[in-house]
Amino acid sequence: MKNITFDNVTLNGGFFADLQRLGREVTLGAVYDRFKETGRFDAFTCSWREGDPENMKPHVFWDSDVAKWIEAAAYYIKLAPDAEDVPSLIEKIEEVIDNIEKNRMADGYFNCYYITCEPNARFTERGNHELYCAGHLIEAAIAYSAATGRDRFLNLMKDYADLIDRIFRVEDSAKFTTPGHEEIEIALIKLSRYTGEKKYFELAEFFLDKRGANEKDAEFCRDWWSKPAQLQNHLPVREQREAVGHAVRACYLYTAMAEYAYETGDPGMAEAVKALFDNVTNKRMYVTGGIGSNSNGEAFTTDYDLPNARAYTETCAAIALAFFASAMQRSYGNDSAYADVLERILFNGARSGMSLDGEAFFYENPLEIPPKWAKPEGSHFPKSQRSKVFGCSCCPPNVARFIPQIGGYAYTTDQMTVYINQFMSSTVHVRILNSDAVVEQETNYPWDGKVKLTYHGERDARLAVRIPSWCDKYFAGTVKGYAYFPVSDGSTIEIDFGVKPMLIGANAKVNEDLCKAALTFGPVVYCMEAVDNGESLGGIRIDPKGKFETAFDEENGYVTVTADGYRRKTSTALYAPLSAEEEKIKVKFIPYYAFANRGESEMQVWMNIK
Amino acid sequence: MKNITFDNVTLNGGFFADLQRLGREVTLGAVYDRFKETGRFDAFTCSWREGDPENMKPHVFWDSDVAKWIEAAAYYIKLAPDAEDVPSLIEKIEEVIDNIEKNRMADGYFNCYYITCEPNARFTERGNHELYCAGHLIEAAIAYSAATGRDRFLNLMKDYADLIDRIFRVEDSAKFTTPGHEEIEIALIKLSRYTGEKKYFELAEFFLDKRGANEKDAEFCRDWWSKPAQLQNHLPVREQREAVGHAVRACYLYTAMAEYAYETGDPGMAEAVKALFDNVTNKRMYVTGGIGSNSNGEAFTTDYDLPNARAYTETCAAIALAFFASAMQRSYGNDSAYADVLERILFNGARSGMSLDGEAFFYENPLEIPPKWAKPEGSHFPKSQRSKVFGCSCCPPNVARFIPQIGGYAYTTDQMTVYINQFMSSTVHVRILNSDAVVEQETNYPWDGKVKLTYHGERDARLAVRIPSWCDKYFAGTVKGYAYFPVSDGSTIEIDFGVKPMLIGANAKVNEDLCKAALTFGPVVYCMEAVDNGESLGGIRIDPKGKFETAFDEENGYVTVTADGYRRKTSTALYAPLSAEEEKIKVKFIPYYAFANRGESEMQVWMNIK
Repeated sequence: MKNITFDNVTLNGGFFADLQRLGREVTLGAVYDRFKETGRFDAFTCSWREGDPENMKPHVFWDSDVAKWIEAAAYYIKLAPDAEDVPSLIEKIEEVIDNIEKNRMADGYFNCYYITCEPNARFTERGNHELYCAGHLIEAAIAYSAATGRDRFLNLMKDYADLIDRIFRVEDSAKFTTPGHEEIEIALIKLSRYTGEKKYFELAEFFLDKRGANEKDAEFCRDWWSKPAQLQNHLPVREQREAVGHAVRACYLYTAMAEYAYETGDPGMAEAVKALFDNVTNKRMYVTGGIGSNSNGEAFTTDYDLPNARAYTETCAAIALAFFASAMQRSYGNDSAYADVLERILFNGARSGMSLDGEAFFYENPLEIPPKWAKPEGSHFPKSQRSKVFGCSCCPPNVARFIPQIGGYAYTTDQMTVYINQFMSSTVHVRILNSDAVVEQETNYPWDGKVKLTYHGERDARLAVRIPSWCDKYFAGTVKGYAYFPVSDGSTIEIDFGVKPMLIGANAKVNEDLCKAALTFGPVVYCMEAVDNGESLGGIRIDPKGKFETAFDEENGYVTVTADGYRRKTSTALYAPLSAEEEKIKVKFIPYYAFANRGESEMQVWMNIK
Repeated sequence: MKNITFDNVTLNGGFFADLQRLGREVTLGAVYDRFKETGRFDAFTCSWREGDPENMKPHVFWDSDVAKWIEAAAYYIKLAPDAEDVPSLIEKIEEVIDNIEKNRMADGYFNCYYITCEPNARFTERGNHELYCAGHLIEAAIAYSAATGRDRFLNLMKDYADLIDRIFRVEDSAKFTTPGHEEIEIALIKLSRYTGEKKYFELAEFFLDKRGANEKDAEFCRDWWSKPAQLQNHLPVREQREAVGHAVRACYLYTAMAEYAYETGDPGMAEAVKALFDNVTNKRMYVTGGIGSNSNGEAFTTDYDLPNARAYTETCAAIALAFFASAMQRSYGNDSAYADVLERILFNGARSGMSLDGEAFFYENPLEIPPKWAKPEGSHFPKSQRSKVFGCSCCPPNVARFIPQIGGYAYTTDQMTVYINQFMSSTVHVRILNSDAVVEQETNYPWDGKVKLTYHGERDARLAVRIPSWCDKYFAGTVKGYAYFPVSDGSTIEIDFGVKPMLIGANAKVNEDLCKAALTFGPVVYCMEAVDNGESLGGIRIDPKGKFETAFDEENGYVTVTADGYRRKTSTALYAPLSAEEEKIKVKFIPYYAFANRGESEMQVWMNIK
C-alpha cells in the first residue's frame, strides 16, 4: 500500500483548504518574523560571542526551529511553485544555506550552538538535541530539494549525515550511541528514499537497533528527564509494548519504527509498532487526539491517566502521533483505526495548537481551563492563552510544516483500490493497475457529512471509503471500517455520514471523565467556555435527553451547538444542604480547537451530565 | 466567658468516652513504643556521636514529639490519677526529666539536637524548630505539674523560658527574632497563667509584636518553605486578614493571637483573629474541618481552592484549628460559629488522623483516594494507608494529647449561663453566680440527636444549647445559634436535633465540588469506599431523591448509610457514544473518619449526583 503524498492532492476549498491558506498567508510569515526577532535565523551566522546579549545566544534546539520553518516553506513552494511568495521564501532559505555552508566544520558537522559556543564539545552530551537538529535539517533539505530542484542544502546535509554515520556507526567515537531526542531516524529513512542511498537507511537501522541495547547511553541517566523510560531506551525497541516517557520523542521513534517495518517487513518491529499504537490510542490518548498526561517530563504516564486541567498534550505530540498514524496507515491501511486517529488529531488536538488568526500557538493543549481562583500559585497548570513565540518554540514551526502536508493523509492506494481516508474537497492523482486515474472528492466536511466521489480512469477500480468511527449509520459491505465500492470511469458515489451533535463517554477507568460526557459534531470535539456560559462551568449539567441545536457561525467558519442544561442553586455559605432547585439554561458549545480565542476564559471538554 | 477545662468534665460513655478509653489504653502506649524504638526518648540522653547509627541522630523536632507524648500522659493522669497505668507513666516521664536536668546547658538551654550535634549553633537557624520544641516542652511541664503537683520539670522549663526571654527580648542576641514555627507563644501564655508570672506573657507578646515587623527574620527567606507568607511574617500580625502559609504554624499563631486578645482586649488583635477565623472557616476549610490545600509547603493556598485527592489537610492542622476555635469560643462564645467548627473537626478531620484500632496515623487526610491507576509515578498524592510512625511524626502525639482534652471543648460559662457547645454524655462542674452547680448531659450523639440536660444548683441559671449548623429543625428563642433555657435546681431539658442522612453542597466557587454532594449524618461526614462499592467510585451517581437507609454497625460502633445510586454502562473502548443505560445500585457509606481501615481502597467524600 502507498500513501499518496500531499503534492499529488489538490485541495479545492473547505476546512483544510482554508487552513492551508491561513498557514501560507499568515502562519509562515508570523513564525519567520518571531524567529528572526528572537535570533534564531541570525544564529546560523555563528557569530554570537560572550558579552553579546544573552537572549541571542544560540540554543541547542534552535537549528530545528529554523529547519522546520524551511520545511514548511518548501512544502508551500511545492504546492504552488508559481505563487507570489516563492522568490522571497527562496531568498530566506538560501540565506540560511549560505550560513550553513560558510560556518559548518571542515568535516561537514553543523550545529549553531556547538559551533558558536562549544566547538570542542560536540557529540558529548546525549540530551543536547544535536542529532534531533540534524534530523530536522535533513528533512528540510529534502523538502527544499523536492520543491525547487536545488540540491546545495541536500548535499551539505548528506555530508553531515555521512559524518554522523562515521562517528556513530563506523567509529563509535561519540560519547553516546543513540540520540536523546529521537527524530533523525525518520529523517535518515526519508533521505535514503529520496537519494536511493541505502547507507542512510542503515544508519537509521543502527540507531533503532542500538536504542536500549548499548552501554554508553546508560551513563546519561541522571534524573527524571533522562531516565531510560523517559527516552525510550528502557528496552530494545522491538521489545517495547507500552508508550512511555516524553511523548514527542516517543512518537517520533515509533514513526521511524513503523517506517522501518514498512520498508523491511521485520516482524519484530511490526509487532512492536502495532502494540505501541494500540497502547497509545486505546489507553493513553485524549478525546482530542492529544497525548502526554504529565507536564513533568512532558510524558506518558499510565493507562487511563488522562487528567484534563493538568493535561500536557503538547501540540508537537499530537503532530508526532499523526506522523505515527500516517506511517501505520500505509502499512495496515485496510483498517480504519489509523485514519480515525489521524482525523481526531486533524480536527482537534493539532488544530487547537494554533489560534484562529494563525499567529499564536499553544505548547500545551489542556482539556479544561479551571477558574482562575482554582489555580493557586506554585501548582502547574498549562497556559490559558496562546503565545506568538516561546523559549522552547518547537510547536509553531511544527504546526507550520504540518498544515501543508495535510492533503497527504487523505488517500492511500493499493494496486486497484483508492482508500479515501480523510474527507476534504480535493482532486487526487493516482495510479490504478499502472494507469493514471483521478478521484474527485466534494464535501463540506466536517460541517456536513455528505461526501461525493467521482472516479475518472481507464481501468475499473475500487473506492474504499472510511466510515468514521463516530458515525452511527450502517453501511453494507464494510470491512475493518472501510466500505468498498467498485467504480469505473465516471462513476460517482454519494455517501452521508450524518454529522450531528453526539455525546461521548469515556472508558470506566478514565477516572477524570467518570459520569461526564464530551460533545462531538462528527469528528469535531466541542467545549464550553465561560465567555459564553458564565463562570464556574463545572456547575453546569447537560441534559443528554435535551435538545441539541446547531448553527453556523459565519464569522468563525464553524458550527456552534446549543444544548439544554441545568445549574443547581448554590449557597453563599462554604457548605450548605444541597439545594433541590435547578435552573434550566441554554449552554453554548464551540469546537474545542477554537478555545481561548476570545481572551481568558474557563473551558471544559468533559462536562457534567444530568 | 470561661472555658470549662477538661478536668472539670467527666465523660460518662458514648463516642468520646470510647475514644478516650482507646486513647489511654492503646494510643498512648503505641506512640510511646514507636518513639522509644525510633530513638526519640533516648535522644534526651544527648549521647549520640558521629559514627552511631544515623537513624538515631536526634532530629530538630524530636523534643516536641516526646513533649506532646508527656502532655498526653499528664492529661490522662489528671483525668484518672488513681488509674493503674499512672505509676508507669510517671516513671517514663521522670526519666525524660532526669535527662533534661542532667544534659541541659548551664544557662538553662535545652534541645536534644543542638546539645548533641551543634552545641555552638543554637539560636542561629530560624527554620530549625528550637522555639517550637521549647514551647511543647513548656506545655508538657505545665500539664505534668497540674496532673501530679511535681514541679521539677516546670522549674527547668521556667529556667529555659527565662533564658529565651533574655536572649530574644532583652539582649536581642539570637540570629533571628521570632520562631520559624510558631507554638511557643501559646505555651508562654499558658505558663504565665499557670505561674501567675507576667513576664512570660510579655515574652509571648514580644514574639507576636515582632512577627512581620523586624529585620533579622527577613534574612532567613530563601525558598518556598521560608518565604514570608509561608511563615506568617509577611505582615505584622494585627494587619493579617487572610490565612496564609503553613497551616499548622498559622493556626498555632492564630490561637496565640486569640488568647492574647482574650487576655488584653486589644482591639487590633481581636479584629485580626475574627477576620482570620472567618477566612479559614468560610473560604479555606474542607467539609471535614481539614485545612491546607497544598502539600507543597503544607499550606493554605487561595479562597475556595480545595482539591480532594490532592488535599494536604494534616492531622496537626485540624487539631491546630480546633485550638484556634476553642480560643475564639471563649472570647466570642455566644456565637455558635466556633463550636460548629470544633464539632466538624472532632467528628471528622481530627478523628480520621487515627485508625480505628488507635495505633496508626495519617499525616495527610485526603478527601478522595483515586484508583491506583490514576496516581502515576512522580505526582504527589497523600498516602492511602495510616502508618504507625513516620519520619516527621508530629501527628501521632498531637492526636494523643488532643483526645484527653476533648471534654474541655464541651462547655463554657458566663456568670449565670452554661453554654453546651458539644454533645457528649458527661457531668460538668461549674460556678453559677459564685455558687457550685452541676449539669448532667445524657446523649448517644452523634448516632442519635436526642440530648437530655439536667441542672443541679442553688441558683437559677440559663442553659444555652448550641443548635448545630447542620440541624434543619426550628428552635424558638435561638440567638446566634444558641437556644436559651431558664433552669432551676432539678430542671431537665430534652431536645432532639433530628440526626438523619443529609446531602451537602459546596459553594459555587469550590471548583472540585461543583455538581457534587457530600453525605452527612448529623455532624459526621460520610464517604464511599471501593471495598464496599467496587472500583471506579467516580462512576457512581447518588440519587438525591432516593432512599437513605441507616444501620448501626456493632463491630465498628458507627452508623452506616445505604443510598440509591446509579452506574452508567460504559464501553470497553477508550471513547464511545454515551450509553443511555444506567444500572440501579445500592451504595454503602461509612463515616469519613473510618476510611482506610480495611486495606487499600478508593475513597470519595464528594460524589456525583443524579
